[in-house]
Amino acid sequence: MNDGGVDSQSLAERSVAALYTADRMSQTLGMRIVAIAAHECVLAMTVKADMVNGLGTCHGGSIFSLADSAFAFACNSGGAPTVAAGASIEFLAAARVGDELTATARAVWQGRRAGLYDVTIVNQQGVRIALFRGRSYRLSGADPRVRESK
Amino acid sequence: MNDGGVDSQSLAERSVAALYTADRMSQTLGMRIVAIAAHECVLAMTVKADMVNGLGTCHGGSIFSLADSAFAFACNSGGAPTVAAGASIEFLAAARVGDELTATARAVWQGRRAGLYDVTIVNQQGVRIALFRGRSYRLSGADPRVRESK
Amino acid sequence: MNDGGVDSQSLAERSVAALYTADRMSQTLGMRIVAIAAHECVLAMTVKADMVNGLGTCHGGSIFSLADSAFAFACNSGGAPTVAAGASIEFLAAARVGDELTATARAVWQGRRAGLYDVTIVNQQGVRIALFRGRSYRLSGADPRVRESK
Amino acid sequence: MNDGGVDSQSLAERSVAALYTADRMSQTLGMRIVAIAAHECVLAMTVKADMVNGLGTCHGGSIFSLADSAFAFACNSGGAPTVAAGASIEFLAAARVGDELTATARAVWQGRRAGLYDVTIVNQQGVRIALFRGRSYRLSGADPRVRESK
Repeated sequence: MNDGGVDSQSLAERSVAALYTADRMSQTLGMRIVAIAAHECVLAMTVKADMVNGLGTCHGGSIFSLADSAFAFACNSGGAPTVAAGASIEFLAAARVGDELTATARAVWQGRRAGLYDVTIVNQQGVRIALFRGRSYRLSGADPRVRESK
Repeated sequence: MNDGGVDSQSLAERSVAALYTADRMSQTLGMRIVAIAAHECVLAMTVKADMVNGLGTCHGGSIFSLADSAFAFACNSGGAPTVAAGASIEFLAAARVGDELTATARAVWQGRRAGLYDVTIVNQQGVRIALFRGRSYRLSGADPRVRESK
Repeated sequence: MNDGGVDSQSLAERSVAALYTADRMSQTLGMRIVAIAAHECVLAMTVKADMVNGLGTCHGGSIFSLADSAFAFACNSGGAPTVAAGASIEFLAAARVGDELTATARAVWQGRRAGLYDVTIVNQQGVRIALFRGRSYRLSGADPRVRESK
Repeated sequence: MNDGGVDSQSLAERSVAALYTADRMSQTLGMRIVAIAAHECVLAMTVKADMVNGLGTCHGGSIFSLADSAFAFACNSGGAPTVAAGASIEFLAAARVGDELTATARAVWQGRRAGLYDVTIVNQQGVRIALFRGRSYRLSGADPRVRESK
């Protein structure tokens, strides 16, 4: 997924910055951008008291939201509007209030329009909290990086 | 999934009420309980401005959260603590600010500890927004209804 | 998923018959067509000795194959070439040599090109063996039934 | 997933050899063991004429079977009987008669009883044909390697 060079990196940074500015949900949940690259994104989020479920651990929806934003930023990093067609998530360990979660999203496959992204979520001790696999669909237009790289 | 009668219904109502009271995430997102039965739950949520993603439509994490709460309430309706092992979601249509979403969760299969639940999310016009399939795992103790019904 | 009337039924029968004739895998595994309708298909298969896995029960690949064929026949029943983009399967109970499996495939959603199908597999006693959810993608051309029904 | 040393490797080889001998489905489809290690397995299979679907390409069930066997061998490589609870597969490119498919299965996570395995299937040119994610469940007994490695 090396799309090469400065232009690709700069495009990714500008694209994700624009998305993040408009993404009220990611802001509300306190997500922070840690790193951006072409087809890749790292986000962090602290589990707050208003993110717990009825059993007192971090709600699956908060964890999914973090993964979904990382996925969205990664698959939109080329500037062409891309949506999530679906996703699956495996919950491996509970997260708790105060935990610092980090989601790392990477493209694992990119077709002409459909793509596949894996997101790993770990806590501050490196324990894997969840694995997420998202399926993206590019609405229109071409991602110039795909033409280059195939 | 008819587990019969008043006791089962009353147990479901008490179990879900206790969960909901502790579930800060569901409250923060404004979810409302519409109906509860043994192994079933219907929740509603209005899409608010702080739930949108970078493309201006309802964030997948909000939609997943609604489905995940309906799933959690349904699979904990027997009183035995049950967690989500994983889930998959298909996004069928976009939801927008102001939309009224309704999630209906139902058990489709229950083994000794593992269970499978389907959740359908529709908007105020009945258009299906997402389909969610959750896999539950009962942490301990037995659900008396399962003994009855198998 | 009522696409109305004789033409749709006749198209489904002809489309599936043509597919089945060319489908060497379904024939090799001994699958039989039980029922066909628009967007629907019921297939049967007897578990034979050469379908077992290393633990002596029916190989997951045999069960998946049955579901995948039912899915393929259902989603190609309109005559427009349609492929599987992906699928998930839950194995609920073991199948054994001599078991008579029946797979029932039905469309649960159809977009312009993408579709979603659920397949339930039961044995001769009605016990559910597996649940399968397939995602289809129509390669080209339009399915006239979709225009009618939306 | 390094479980260390000769005993683990020897156990894996003996366990998989015993499974393969009993696995009539894998033999019927002509699967060959390429490599075995603790929690890992590489299998190869040539796409034959009797593995095609109605569209003339390799049936999804054949591809799933190869992935499922690699997964089963990997997750049973510790000697404790382990079954598939479920799986998802993404079909990325078509395989054709004569293609030489290779499936590489690796554990990505192992809990006390539940595990998660990823399988990648490529053809003879290294093109990815499918990605498979399997969820395993150990029926009984402990895998001594898990105690060692956690």
